Amino acid sequence: MAPQLTLYGYFASPFSEKVELALKEGNIPYKYFSVDLTNKPAFFTEQINTIGKVPAITYGGPDVAPEEPSPLSVKLAESNVILEFLADTYPEAKLMPTDPVQRARVRFFIEAVTNKYIPAYMAWVFDREPQAAENLLKAIEFLQGLLSDAAGYAVGDSYTTADVCITPFIHRLYHSIEYDIGKFPVGSGPKLGESLKDLKYAKFTAYASAVTARPVAKEIWVLNKEAVTKFRMKMLGRE
Amino acid sequence: MAPQLTLYGYFASPFSEKVELALKEGNIPYKYFSVDLTNKPAFFTEQINTIGKVPAITYGGPDVAPEEPSPLSVKLAESNVILEFLADTYPEAKLMPTDPVQRARVRFFIEAVTNKYIPAYMAWVFDREPQAAENLLKAIEFLQGLLSDAAGYAVGDSYTTADVCITPFIHRLYHSIEYDIGKFPVGSGPKLGESLKDLKYAKFTAYASAVTARPVAKEIWVLNKEAVTKFRMKMLGRE
Repeated sequence: MAPQLTLYGYFASPFSEKVELALKEGNIPYKYFSVDLTNKPAFFTEQINTIGKVPAITYGGPDVAPEEPSPLSVKLAESNVILEFLADTYPEAKLMPTDPVQRARVRFFIEAVTNKYIPAYMAWVFDREPQAAENLLKAIEFLQGLLSDAAGYAVGDSYTTADVCITPFIHRLYHSIEYDIGKFPVGSGPKLGESLKDLKYAKFTAYASAVTARPVAKEIWVLNKEAVTKFRMKMLGRE
Repeated sequence: MAPQLTLYGYFASPFSEKVELALKEGNIPYKYFSVDLTNKPAFFTEQINTIGKVPAITYGGPDVAPEEPSPLSVKLAESNVILEFLADTYPEAKLMPTDPVQRARVRFFIEAVTNKYIPAYMAWVFDREPQAAENLLKAIEFLQGLLSDAAGYAVGDSYTTADVCITPFIHRLYHSIEYDIGKFPVGSGPKLGESLKDLKYAKFTAYASAVTARPVAKEIWVLNKEAVTKFRMKMLGRE
């Protein structure tokens, strides 16, 4: 029997969605526990992740209820660390290539998503900085330059952790475009959508369609989209 | 014969020093090319790393002069990506544990060094922010909490990539303390050194001594220390 694995996540969290995607894409059995981030249960901050952030996982130990974690399970946090752990632990899930150079390309793409694209996207949605849209388009262009030519996925022709890492942020990018929900001036969402129709972003938009069209991505987003909408409306005082 | 490997680095760069440390600790043969960051050679920005940052490596292809890189070699950048690549490519160097949980602990430590310790250290040296010393001490306490109890190294009792990642920043921390060179108020260096003598940091300081006492760390630091001193004096207009 496979060791127990529990994901502590939150539907609106893109970082938590990354781990959900990897687990489902890799056909890895797991339990899900949704942590109420506005009122974190004591067992979570005391026994799972003292920093209090999601995602976190417990791995191994007896098969217990998520609310009663066993001291015998391993506790891990940080989405990128968890993704590498899943790839190491479940090689049959093929979340990472086996060739070291391809693995390096996956990790370079993840670095770019984490340190260039995500900050630029977050700044656009939350910071009201005049250059934000331009900076986000630059980050998208940079990422686009990394995409493998063999259309389909970020690195080579198989779906990997690189694709997992950006998918939740592509979901949220198009959510911002469609619903125009952000601290940016009204209309900035659809306006960015128009900019992205420029042919120079064609490779990125084709890639975005490919990763979000996967059945697992669609299945997860049905539920998480509603949570993201509620979370953002609340944040903007529009609930 | 082992594939060719060339490191493009810069003596004063802690990120470049990380890769030097891993290569020497792992007994991996390589050539070193020092990139003049104030006047980058065209071949570097055109053929090695278009972003222009060090460290970068070329791997494989014919054995050419560093100034004449072959289009047949793989080019990789980003120090943490390069370190994982080295661990994957040279398993005999034992830069990463083989157990997935231990590997996750190494990566969690690296995340903490990269996202907590380094920013706090940089802010203390360069930003003149009143809370900087306190924030740096908090980051040190956090890292200390991650150190394995089996004294010696960050994760378990073997030297790993986790130790590689922090060593250049420990060198620079003690450099700042000893030479009092930084944009902070005069005397802040030695003052931090005094704070670190508090028993509550004993585990961190013992760890810092252990990783910097390794022959490879000492050998590399002899040269890099002089470069760091010159670079920082220049930056402060004290050359």
